[in-house]
Amino acid sequence: GQPLLLIGGPCALESEEIARTVAEKMQEICNRLGISYIFKASFDKANRTSLSSYRGPGLEKGLMILASIRESMQLPVISDVHDASQVKAAAEVLDIIQIPAFLCRQTDLLTEAARTGKVVNVKKGQFVSPWDMKNVVDKLRGVGGRKIMLVERGASFGYNNLVVDMRSLPIMRSLGCPVVFDATHSVQLPGGAGGSSGGQREFIEPLARAATAAGIDGLFMEIHPDPRKALCDGANSIALDDVEEVLKRIIKIRTALA
Amino acid sequence: GQPLLLIGGPCALESEEIARTVAEKMQEICNRLGISYIFKASFDKANRTSLSSYRGPGLEKGLMILASIRESMQLPVISDVHDASQVKAAAEVLDIIQIPAFLCRQTDLLTEAARTGKVVNVKKGQFVSPWDMKNVVDKLRGVGGRKIMLVERGASFGYNNLVVDMRSLPIMRSLGCPVVFDATHSVQLPGGAGGSSGGQREFIEPLARAATAAGIDGLFMEIHPDPRKALCDGANSIALDDVEEVLKRIIKIRTALA
Amino acid sequence: GQPLLLIGGPCALESEEIARTVAEKMQEICNRLGISYIFKASFDKANRTSLSSYRGPGLEKGLMILASIRESMQLPVISDVHDASQVKAAAEVLDIIQIPAFLCRQTDLLTEAARTGKVVNVKKGQFVSPWDMKNVVDKLRGVGGRKIMLVERGASFGYNNLVVDMRSLPIMRSLGCPVVFDATHSVQLPGGAGGSSGGQREFIEPLARAATAAGIDGLFMEIHPDPRKALCDGANSIALDDVEEVLKRIIKIRTALA
Amino acid sequence: GQPLLLIGGPCALESEEIARTVAEKMQEICNRLGISYIFKASFDKANRTSLSSYRGPGLEKGLMILASIRESMQLPVISDVHDASQVKAAAEVLDIIQIPAFLCRQTDLLTEAARTGKVVNVKKGQFVSPWDMKNVVDKLRGVGGRKIMLVERGASFGYNNLVVDMRSLPIMRSLGCPVVFDATHSVQLPGGAGGSSGGQREFIEPLARAATAAGIDGLFMEIHPDPRKALCDGANSIALDDVEEVLKRIIKIRTALA
Repeated sequence: GQPLLLIGGPCALESEEIARTVAEKMQEICNRLGISYIFKASFDKANRTSLSSYRGPGLEKGLMILASIRESMQLPVISDVHDASQVKAAAEVLDIIQIPAFLCRQTDLLTEAARTGKVVNVKKGQFVSPWDMKNVVDKLRGVGGRKIMLVERGASFGYNNLVVDMRSLPIMRSLGCPVVFDATHSVQLPGGAGGSSGGQREFIEPLARAATAAGIDGLFMEIHPDPRKALCDGANSIALDDVEEVLKRIIKIRTALA
Repeated sequence: GQPLLLIGGPCALESEEIARTVAEKMQEICNRLGISYIFKASFDKANRTSLSSYRGPGLEKGLMILASIRESMQLPVISDVHDASQVKAAAEVLDIIQIPAFLCRQTDLLTEAARTGKVVNVKKGQFVSPWDMKNVVDKLRGVGGRKIMLVERGASFGYNNLVVDMRSLPIMRSLGCPVVFDATHSVQLPGGAGGSSGGQREFIEPLARAATAAGIDGLFMEIHPDPRKALCDGANSIALDDVEEVLKRIIKIRTALA
Repeated sequence: GQPLLLIGGPCALESEEIARTVAEKMQEICNRLGISYIFKASFDKANRTSLSSYRGPGLEKGLMILASIRESMQLPVISDVHDASQVKAAAEVLDIIQIPAFLCRQTDLLTEAARTGKVVNVKKGQFVSPWDMKNVVDKLRGVGGRKIMLVERGASFGYNNLVVDMRSLPIMRSLGCPVVFDATHSVQLPGGAGGSSGGQREFIEPLARAATAAGIDGLFMEIHPDPRKALCDGANSIALDDVEEVLKRIIKIRTALA
Repeated sequence: GQPLLLIGGPCALESEEIARTVAEKMQEICNRLGISYIFKASFDKANRTSLSSYRGPGLEKGLMILASIRESMQLPVISDVHDASQVKAAAEVLDIIQIPAFLCRQTDLLTEAARTGKVVNVKKGQFVSPWDMKNVVDKLRGVGGRKIMLVERGASFGYNNLVVDMRSLPIMRSLGCPVVFDATHSVQLPGGAGGSSGGQREFIEPLARAATAAGIDGLFMEIHPDPRKALCDGANSIALDDVEEVLKRIIKIRTALA
């Protein structure tokens, strides 16, 4: 079968140094484990819980950092767009354009992304059933999009909680798209910590293992050298030093089922 | 107490004629019943289920129709924006700027809307708890927004279904903002009809009555002369001919509790 | 229309004195407000969160207290059964036999209750859709049950939380049975307080008002002279001194819609 | 580590012949794969959706069949009880006493089962959070229960649907009890087929694999020689001929993670 895809990196671009630290270590680990690695970081977190939350360096500076990492490390990069007006500039740098979960039904954003010819990676909204992602795929295909990936990142389950329905993985795969499991956003507790979202880091590994065994094409993880100091989503990020052990077990499951 | 606010009109602007038909009849009914009426229609439905769904006349033409209705009928108008770039033009015409539920955490859209000084009406996301709307209100207030209204329109409840948690009404009111109950989107069955969302028109009235009795400042209803022919959200719109009877009972409840 | 039915009393029978205090005051209030009052208390709380929770006086002693109240006050009484073996004894005293929500699918309990010829009041399980209560009604009718009432008491909404879906009221009424809204169990936070369930007393009134406006035949409330000292469900009980004001507003809504 | 436990058999005892067919083949497969097999069948399905649903042979005859299989095949057997009055007779035959999900908070049933000294296997209610199973465990331990197993079988997710929250597996394991994943009831669609519950057999394997990778001690599966003809839960049973392939992959995952 195909090698596992790993989309990983810090939630937001904080500094080029942190980005490189993560990218280099992850590239090395993934090379060793036979994983296809794609570096991920956001240039702008457009939907943080609070005004005072860190948002990132912005489109221009962010894309510059991503371009620099991409070229110097020969690493594909992915980031998310929030507005049709950002898509063109983003497509000049990114290998994969990501559509955030809350925005997965915004027609213009989807079609603008599809029209670039780049891979489009759509996160399933917390409010969308897995079978209704067919409508999203149809929107992308309807304007010529051919390279589409879909991401499970949890569904609304009461208030301030998400649940991962593992049935969504085979359902979304049946739409003919590679399916990625976002192991770190899935353990968010949305709004669960007052002015920011909380997280349950301890469940990253069991959920990632479960999804791997259920059947996925890729994993998504927010990775930070020191999650306690992360300017965004620290509570649900995995520490850079912990990733390798988790990935080894993921690969064991994948190999066992190959 | 204050008179009931009614935000109502066709989901999308289809033609100026339909818009006027609804606006005129509603103005007349509301005058008679002592209700403050605000005409609502969308110039662009940016998140329809499918590419082929009707989206509306677009920003420019849509605002023109809204401006014409506003001036000729002396009627306040409300519409929704989907992108920070639309806010300025919209604010030149609209009395109230509405933020769609899926976009209720998009910081730039919120702050851009608040900065216009217009009333901002934010729909609570289907994935947001009522108490977390405090973060939305704080974002708006943080840039000087003072006139904020919040809307309940249902919360994700499993797949393809929404549930209205009536507790959300007093919770959101406790944030110091008028609270509106959206009686027609609350009976949507998201994605429930294949390539479009379904609806349960029969529950518009019981839910509107329930919300009124629980305590609200306003009602929101999509109203169409012939919901079966509506180009958008027909399944959960109320027929223009049926509105008055429902409103009469709403006013009876409100009066009884005054 | 029919007068409102009120099923109310302390969660568990604590002492005959407390039971009488509640029953007498409620009888007086309900007479005054034109409400049909039914005294409710449990002789055994068979599903408390913890072993050390107070359970009540048991079948024999509990029925004795209920019989004494029933006869001396000329008041119909209701209590719940948890086991087919209790039904016969209970039916000798009770006017209405109540089936707890967790047990609403236990066939033997339902049929045994129906066969007594008494009114059977079934609480909809937190895990049951309103339309699936048809199966419960069919079980009761299938053995000759003709006097059936159905109760909404909230549906599971994520963990440790219930949501009242007001759509359930018209849906269950369409099954041809009077529908009761349980305003106090609906505000329980199941398991939400460690070794016992928590509650949100502040939402009893808004939910009771909402349900009344949506359309119900009866209300159910756990009422205690001093909820802080109640041996069961204090967190979601209403204080005896507060009931009248709430009921007055309920009656106003009901009258307005009559 | 410990060998995987498999609790499996037909939903209800239909005939001794079907029971033996399943038990013999499963014993043979499990011996080969190094799985500890426990034969499961219900003597009474006390909570079927409809009166006309098949319930099983009843306590006496059912226990006789179970005893006969147990002795002749040297196979541990498990079945469920629904009433404290059944526990003593059941404990004379069964190796493990199972408490149904709907009844997991019924104190008398739990304590009566624990007092027998037998292993007690409690299914987590569809309305119970994984951490609240601590209260169940405490009830059992409070009367001397020491051998307790807990089962995940899905949580209420909107109406007519269950979702398996894989976080529940590590959470329940942290209570110090072996945890079993019920792969066939978890794919039930409660009440989803009118007068009976539907099921999604296609998700049995992905969920079983996912749970195995997340970390479990045992699996539970309803197995029938011909699920289409099963008198109970056919829609979510696995065919006897399909079990071995699934178990092989389960064992591969388990071995990979050992």
